[in-house]
Amino acid sequence: MAKVSSPTEIERCLESLTAVFQKYAGKDGYNYILSKTEFLSFMNTELAAFTKNQDPGVLDRMVKRLDTNSDGQLDFLEFLNLISGLAMACHDSFLKAVPSQKQI
Amino acid sequence: MAKVSSPTEIERCLESLTAVFQKYAGKDGYNYILSKTEFLSFMNTELAAFTKNQDPGVLDRMVKRLDTNSDGQLDFLEFLNLISGLAMACHDSFLKAVPSQKQI
Repeated sequence: MAKVSSPTEIERCLESLTAVFQKYAGKDGYNYILSKTEFLSFMNTELAAFTKNQDPGVLDRMVKRLDTNSDGQLDFLEFLNLISGLAMACHDSFLKAVPSQKQI
Repeated sequence: MAKVSSPTEIERCLESLTAVFQKYAGKDGYNYILSKTEFLSFMNTELAAFTKNQDPGVLDRMVKRLDTNSDGQLDFLEFLNLISGLAMACHDSFLKAVPSQKQI
């Protein structure tokens, strides 16, 4: 039987990003766009550790900031901007937590 | 013993993005920037399925396009732009493969 190599961490991550977006975006039948309700469901389920300590208005402000074309919904690119912002925050926290790390 | 919930798919993905970047960026001692050599190592290891069928000049052109501040290296934000581009390509492929999917 041919050997199938398992996906790398990054390949798994790319698959997760598309699958999770489609899972939540597909709740109302359109799996290429996140309505505000679907976004709130995504945030409160997939990122509950982040949302549980936030002011109730934070998610509303996040939708407004992410919704760059102001159509009241989030497409996949707008969703990826959220992921990038969160990843940047994780990365910055790591750099601050490692003060001995060499930086220019 | 207190119950520790396992990370969600998105939390795992955020962790992977930062950890994999730092793993490759740290090869020369600075784990907040990817040199061109580190980028090639990352691409040929983590995304080998993508790179193996590409023209040899593709990775050079990718570095130039991703390196928005033209310093010859990639910071984490520039790396995230690569991830977003790849995720968009996966998402677009999915939408094309599902022609019955409702779209505006």
